[in-house]
Formats: sequence, C-alpha cells, structure tokens
Amino acid sequence: MSDPLFEKHSATLDRALTAIRERAYWSAFNESPSPRVYGDDAAPRGKAAFESYLAADFPLDQPGTTGWTATEKSPFGVPLDVRYPHPDVDALLAAATAAMPAWRDAGPQARAGVCLEILTRLGDNVFELANAVQFTTGQAFVMAFQAGGAHALDRALEAVAYGYAEMTRTPAEATWEKPAGKGDPLRMVKTWHVVPRGIALVIGCNTFPTWNSYPGLFASLVTGNPVVVKPHPRAVLPLAITVRYAREVLAEAGFDPNLVTLAAEEPGEGLASVLAQRPEVRIVDFTGSTEYGEWLEEHARQAVVYTEKAGVNAIIVDSTDDFAGMCRNIGFSLTLYSGQMCTTPQNILVPRDGIATEAGHKSFDEVAAGIASAVGKLTADPARGVELTGAIVNDGVLERLDRSRGLGEVVLDSRAVTHPAFGDAVVRTPLVVKLDAGGEQTFGTEWFGPISFVIATDSTEQSLELFRRTVGRKGALTASVYATDDKVLDAAERVALDVGVHLSANLTGGVFVNQSAAFSDFHGTGANAAANAALTDGAYVASRFRIVQSRRHG
Amino acid sequence: MSDPLFEKHSATLDRALTAIRERAYWSAFNESPSPRVYGDDAAPRGKAAFESYLAADFPLDQPGTTGWTATEKSPFGVPLDVRYPHPDVDALLAAATAAMPAWRDAGPQARAGVCLEILTRLGDNVFELANAVQFTTGQAFVMAFQAGGAHALDRALEAVAYGYAEMTRTPAEATWEKPAGKGDPLRMVKTWHVVPRGIALVIGCNTFPTWNSYPGLFASLVTGNPVVVKPHPRAVLPLAITVRYAREVLAEAGFDPNLVTLAAEEPGEGLASVLAQRPEVRIVDFTGSTEYGEWLEEHARQAVVYTEKAGVNAIIVDSTDDFAGMCRNIGFSLTLYSGQMCTTPQNILVPRDGIATEAGHKSFDEVAAGIASAVGKLTADPARGVELTGAIVNDGVLERLDRSRGLGEVVLDSRAVTHPAFGDAVVRTPLVVKLDAGGEQTFGTEWFGPISFVIATDSTEQSLELFRRTVGRKGALTASVYATDDKVLDAAERVALDVGVHLSANLTGGVFVNQSAAFSDFHGTGANAAANAALTDGAYVASRFRIVQSRRHG
Repeated sequence: MSDPLFEKHSATLDRALTAIRERAYWSAFNESPSPRVYGDDAAPRGKAAFESYLAADFPLDQPGTTGWTATEKSPFGVPLDVRYPHPDVDALLAAATAAMPAWRDAGPQARAGVCLEILTRLGDNVFELANAVQFTTGQAFVMAFQAGGAHALDRALEAVAYGYAEMTRTPAEATWEKPAGKGDPLRMVKTWHVVPRGIALVIGCNTFPTWNSYPGLFASLVTGNPVVVKPHPRAVLPLAITVRYAREVLAEAGFDPNLVTLAAEEPGEGLASVLAQRPEVRIVDFTGSTEYGEWLEEHARQAVVYTEKAGVNAIIVDSTDDFAGMCRNIGFSLTLYSGQMCTTPQNILVPRDGIATEAGHKSFDEVAAGIASAVGKLTADPARGVELTGAIVNDGVLERLDRSRGLGEVVLDSRAVTHPAFGDAVVRTPLVVKLDAGGEQTFGTEWFGPISFVIATDSTEQSLELFRRTVGRKGALTASVYATDDKVLDAAERVALDVGVHLSANLTGGVFVNQSAAFSDFHGTGANAAANAALTDGAYVASRFRIVQSRRHG
Repeated sequence: MSDPLFEKHSATLDRALTAIRERAYWSAFNESPSPRVYGDDAAPRGKAAFESYLAADFPLDQPGTTGWTATEKSPFGVPLDVRYPHPDVDALLAAATAAMPAWRDAGPQARAGVCLEILTRLGDNVFELANAVQFTTGQAFVMAFQAGGAHALDRALEAVAYGYAEMTRTPAEATWEKPAGKGDPLRMVKTWHVVPRGIALVIGCNTFPTWNSYPGLFASLVTGNPVVVKPHPRAVLPLAITVRYAREVLAEAGFDPNLVTLAAEEPGEGLASVLAQRPEVRIVDFTGSTEYGEWLEEHARQAVVYTEKAGVNAIIVDSTDDFAGMCRNIGFSLTLYSGQMCTTPQNILVPRDGIATEAGHKSFDEVAAGIASAVGKLTADPARGVELTGAIVNDGVLERLDRSRGLGEVVLDSRAVTHPAFGDAVVRTPLVVKLDAGGEQTFGTEWFGPISFVIATDSTEQSLELFRRTVGRKGALTASVYATDDKVLDAAERVALDVGVHLSANLTGGVFVNQSAAFSDFHGTGANAAANAALTDGAYVASRFRIVQSRRHG
C-alpha cells in the first residue's frame, strides 16, 4: 500500500529519523539565501509574492468567514494592510472535526508524506516566507530567511520525524501466539490504530511566528489532528502563507483542506482564549508571556498544553583563554535581533574582583567594557548594524527599554538608529547596565528586549548560586559559562542539571548561545519555568495521539 | 563503563525491548504456580513468609516513622493485623529528595539494572506476593499468583523497557560538526543528560495493588524519580513487600533505599491528597474512582497525573458461529474475580429480536439464558467456583450488588456461597439483569462488582449507537463484539476508534476480554474517560523525565 507522497519523501524522512537518533549535524533546508543555492529567480519571486498580499484580502478559502481583519504594523514602518478572514469559531471547528476521520484513517505514512510535501512547498517559497517574517517581526532579512524560513522548516521536519517515529514504535499489526500446553496455541491477530486527540490549536508569537509555531503545528498534524493556527495579531502573514500552502497541498493530495485553518482575530478579541477552552480543542501549543501561558495551563484543562514562556537566561563568566573571542561572542548574542529572542542572555554574572584571561587579569569593569565594546563595534555602522539588530518588534519593548536605563549604571547606552533602507523603522542598539549581586529583585525577572545586565558577584561560587536561584525560580531557555578550569565547567553543568537548563561552554567562535540547531540541540527542556516542553523530543509528540487496539482470531 | 546489574539483566532487557517493538507473544515471568516451574519449596516458603508478617510490625527501616497503622481486613475473613510504619510526610519527602541526585547521575543503564534486579527479587518471592494479594484483595490464589504476581512483574518489566528505550532515544553524547564554507567546520561536543521530574507518587487500589501500581512505579523509578508508594488502606501488604525488596536491592547496589518508600495511612487520613499536592511530588499514578481521579487531575497541578478510573465496558452481540463458545467465554469474564475487574464487561447489547447462530436463530431471552447458564455452570460447585470468583473485596460492592437486583428483571441471581476453606469469606456469584435500551440512565454508569446487564436493543445498529454514546460519555477499558459478518466487525471497530476503546472480536476460546497480555495488549487507551493514559506506551513514560543538554567545544 505505497503512498505516492510518502514514496517521494521517504529518503528525506529516513535521513531525518537518523538525524534525531544521532543528533549530530544535519539540515534539510539550506540556510543560505544565495542565488547560487536557490537560483536567481527565487529572491525577486518571493518579494513579488509578498508584495502581492499587501493591501488586499489574503487568499484563503476556508469556511465560516464572517469578515476581514487587518491588525499588523510593520516594525520597519512599511504599510502592510493585509486583510485576513475572520472566522466563525463554530464553523471553523465543525469543519476541522469533519476533516479528522479520513486523515486519521490515512495512517502515519500518508500523513508524513503530506506533511513533507507541505514543507517542500514552503521551502520552494521560502523567500516569500522570509519577507513576511521580516516585515512582521522586525528581523533583518538574513535572519528572517534563516530563523523564519530554513531553520523553521528544519524544526518542522524534526517534529514530523519524531511524530512518525513515535507512531510507528507500535507495529500496525502483529500475530500473538501463546503456547497452551499440549493444546493448540491461543492465536490472535492484533491491529493498532493511531488515533488523534482532537483539534490542535497553535498560538503564534510576535517575534518568531514560524520557528516557534512549526514544531507544534506539524507534530499535531502528522499525528492525525486537525490544526487551527491562531497567529499573533501583529505577525499573521507568515502563518497565513503557511496555512495557504498547507491547504493547497492537502487538497491536491485528496484530503480536506480544513485540516489546517487560520484563526485571525480582531484587535483585542481574545480569540485564543475562546478557542483554547472549546471542548473540541485537545492540544494547545503556545509561545509568549508567562502570564498567558499560565492562564492556558490553568484554563485549557480539556487539552494537553505545551507552553514556552519567559525566563532569565544567564552567562557565568569565571575565566577565559580568549577574552576577545568571548566578548565578541557575547556581544553578537546581545545584538542579534536587538536581544528580542527568548534565548538572548540577560544576566551576565562576573566576579567583582575580575577574571583571569590569556592576557592576564581583567577587572570587572574591563569585562563589562569588553562586552559593551563588542556590541558597539557590531552596531557602529548603521547599514551593517541594522542587518543584525533588525527593528524593534513593538512598543512594549521600547517602553521597557526606556524604563531599564534607570536600573543601574549604564555601561553601554541604547541608541536610536536610522535604518538606511526603511526610514520609519524603529531601530535600537542594545543597552548594557551594571548591577550588583544584591539586585536580584531587578535581574531575577525577564526584561525582554535589548536589555542585559553585567552583574558583579562576590565569586564564581556566588554567580552559580544566583544562577541556581534565578533560573530555579523563573526558568531559562539558555545558559552559558566561560571557564578555563574543568572543575568550574563541571560545577556549572551540575547546577544546570539541577535547574534543568541547557548549558553551553566557552563559546568564542561561530556558535552562539541564543541559537539552537534543529536535529541536534534541543530548544527548552521542560524542566524549568520557562517551558513545559522541549522542541522536539519524544515527550513533545507522544501525547498528541493514542493507540487503539483491535484483536481478532487469526 | 559496564554496570554489573545491567550486564546481568541485559539479555532480558534486550528481549523486552524487542517485545515492545513487535508486540507479539512474550513473557518473562512464568504464570504457572506449578512446583515443576518454581520448585517444591517455593509455595510453602511463600506462604510462610506471608504468615510471618501477620500480627506484627512490618519490617521496613524507612525514615520519619511516627507510629504504626493496621488497616487491612481480608475478604477471606482471616485476621491480618499487619502494622505498617506511618510516615512523617516532611521526613519522607526530604529523604526521597536527598536520594535523587545520585540516582539521576547513575544513568539509564545502572537504573535499568537495579530495576530488573528488583523485579527478579520479587519474582523469586512471587508466592509471598501472591499470598499477600490473595488475602488483601479477595482474589483466588491462582489469579493472585498470575495477575498479582507474574503478570504484574511482566507489566513492570514492560514499563522498564519503555522507560529505557525512551531515555536512550537521545544519545548520551555526539559530536556536531557544521561545515563553514572554506573555513574550519564549527565543532561542538554535546552531551545529553536524563533528568528526573521529581518525586513520583503511586496511589494503589484495593483490587489490583501490584498489577495496577507496578507500571507507574517502575516507569518512574527507571527514569530517575524517587517513588513514594501510597497503598490502598485495605491492600497494603503486597506493596509493603514490594517496597521492602526494592529497598533491599537498592541498598545492595549502593543506592539510597529511600528512593522507594511506603506511605501507609491511618483510616480516613487522606494521605494521598496531602502527598499529591506537595510541590516536591511531580508525578502521580492513580487507579481508582472517577471522582478521586478527577480530584487529582484538578488539584495536583504541579505534577503529571496518570489516572485509571471507572468506565462502562460493553459487549455487542450481533451473531456468532459458536453460540456455546460465546456464552462460555462471556460467562467466564463475568465470573472471574466476581466481576471486580476494571475490565469486566458490564453492558451486553443484544438485539431484542435475537441473533443468528450456527445452530439457527436464538431469541434475546435465549442469549441471556445462555450467558446466565454459563455463569451458573462455572459457579455450581462451590469448591471450584470460589477458585474463580474469589471473595468480595469490600462492603461497597456488596451494597451495590443488593441495590442492583431491583434494576430490572433478574436473569441470574447472585448467590452467597460458603467458601470451603475460609468460612468467613464473603463470596457472591454474578448477578445478571435484563434491561431495555431505554434504560441508559442505569447502564450508562459503572456498577462495579458482579453486576452485568443484558440489554435489549432494536438492532445491532442501535447497539453500536449505545456503545458509542455510553463509552463516549463515561469511557471504557474494554469492549468486544460478536459477529459473523466482517462488515459488522468493521463497523464496531470504527466506533471503537471513534470512542477510543480497545476492541476484541469473537472471543470464544481461551482469550478473555477482561484480560490483557503484557508486551502485546495495551491496557486502556488514554482516549476516553476511563483512563488518561495507556499501560504502557511511549506517552506513559516520555514525560517522566527531561533531557538537559551540555555543549562544549570539541
């Protein structure tokens, strides 16, 4: 019973299955936006496709559309005015429910084939996606292409692979034959069916609409669940495009396109809360604030709820044999997307008596200045700087940035930069503030945006204690340590295990603590307050479906 | 880094890992209590060990004992008076917490080795366990030996295998090497650590203290979590023995025995609720009433909660080519342990116009009489009957049985039987009552105990509709169908998929709907109201631990 799309993509799926077992380097979607990779035509075609959506009704033929809504405001200051269908919730959920049985009965192979075909279709239109991500999130183009395009697709494929592996751990059929003394053995033919939980709701975020949504979306879809995508009102387009191509592929493959629908909302409508509490919705994936994540966990009791929330990412600086490399690496992490990543370091813990380096002792102030100087170099030239920082995603970040100037001594002030290409873009360089270990009231919570603290501690021991306490209380998605002594690295690793956060050691080159590689690095652990799940592991997919058995005599 | 206990048991573990992939027949613990299997000495030794516990303080050297409590009352009417340590909750949880880091750091192999050694130790003392199960639950000896001993151990091993497979899906270490154009590749050495969630609470039930507790207990333990076992106050001994041998093995292997502790309670103390809401408790496994299961799901919000609750198991009778075999098979299922299994059929749906059989048409009354007659034959001789029915587990069942006589026309009345060996045993044969399809108010909820309904429906179509509605609302752990037409079997299978219940077809021989085989049949689906998880699959183990990553330059 070979399925044509499964056949078409089986080599890719096999490679992805190997990759998640090995977790060494692998990638399916090329992260270089170069014409040498994608062809001369790809970039202009993607730009044109993006522009065709502007100031128009987005082409989506889903049922139950009650009107049209336009809620986006580009951080680059360009007018978007894309109008999305606003759904009648009953009609949308009824359509999704009706689509489910045939999708369930198609089985794991057919579903994996369709999911991979959707990813391929999105990959063929990755420049379109990248433009949409750029202009809704404020990411610079290359980052939007990579994080919002190729890497998001890799993460989606990773989720499909985990889902497929999980579904096929149990055979579809087996003959059970139990010896019965001298008599004939007892014999039963058993079949096992993968049964979806129900409708899956994916709630997108403002900063990474695709990267953070794709794992949940595709993990749910491949395991048999219809998916309703509720985008952030300021980052709808990347997910609308995703839904569009998903529906296109589903229909081509003979399935009901209502397996994937968009639920765009009016300003202030609170559609996520309505959907999340519907009995038909049995899975919720969410990225965003701790407050709303906890609300979902509390109220969407009929569903399995996967949340990624706020945290306090930390760097423990003890010593280094590459001071310049360390400062450059940290500086880059703070600068990328103006620190608006859930993985950007916030608390840089440095002994007040300074640290040992390959160039001798560096005082606390020299460490702070070294990091500040690295950020300064990366952002000195506006034209090059904006290609790293991008723009500020929304006013909330700006407001927080203004407030945080008064928190301590400013090591590096944030500057407003005029974007050479987009005069109305809101661009800010990172702010670095000095704090004391006693300022836990301040640095013990998340200051999302281009805001970092260099914190003077009594010792690395105290740094580790603060790391343990702050991450233990508020969680973190990332942590890193700089130390030349393995004992310090091991001690940091031990604390990281205790508080359940991934740890990177001595990053001085081209690997950054705020970036994780699909098929190798896990994103989040599920073991601290910043997230209740990891992208992507067995636990992330295993509860999205159930196995129902049927046994008959052989 | 070979671990001696892992080495010792690795062949068994490998075989179990194969078994859960294939789900064909396999068993590690022999279900025959014959001296030819276990030796002449095993039975008397187990009986003596059991008797040594009676009217004495149970030998358990765990910390924080504040006094002693005896709460059991044997359904066989024999005095037990075993006194169990009553714990100070703070002391017990503190000891469990302190034991965790070394257990975590030991890794999957060492933990699997210890778990298998515990199972081996329990297997060596399976007659002791069987006696304890028999005299606390009211199961007849052979059933106590099988379900409470060998099968429970098989289920435990199955859980260990799933836990081990899940933990080792991610490699312990990998080198990640990303090409970087013409420069040196980026290279990181990554390690992945299995980190437990925290303390696991296992809440045992009265009827199957070992079989229903072992999967959760061993799934949590092998994945790194300390386990606190809170037995049902009327079925403490089987789990006290389990905890005793587990602690013995842990200590011998150099681990803190406080990784497994017993939390016996005073009558009416409500210790489960206290423990389940403690922040240190991060996993709860429960078998019992829907009411309390839902309370746990609602209140133990800091934990992952796995519950098995009540349900309305059904049989759809459409037609058969072996009328006598069908009646015998159903009759046996109703008689075994006096219907006090969570898997015993309750609602037998039969068309009021009767069914086609190999011996011609049988009227509704003939079908009901056939089943009643099969039960009657199995229970006619008290000496043989009690070896199937065992005794009534508690007064709640007796009271319900009395009430249910008035629900409809009695096809087969329940009889009190004098147990030939235990004069004070409370023995009752099954009651079978006729109802009409309109009596959904009655048969739509669970009547736990030796109470079954033969329900007259308009047609098999209506039977399927009632099956869909009752199981859809209240859940079920088992369902079966009798039909000679594949179309009917397929239709029943389709409804079973929709309402998420395992289905057996045309059982007429030695396989019974209320029995499931470890390593092949799943118990529960997690897809209906009767249980939120299955024993045992990937979803059952995957959320009991987290993966924390550490990456360093290679």
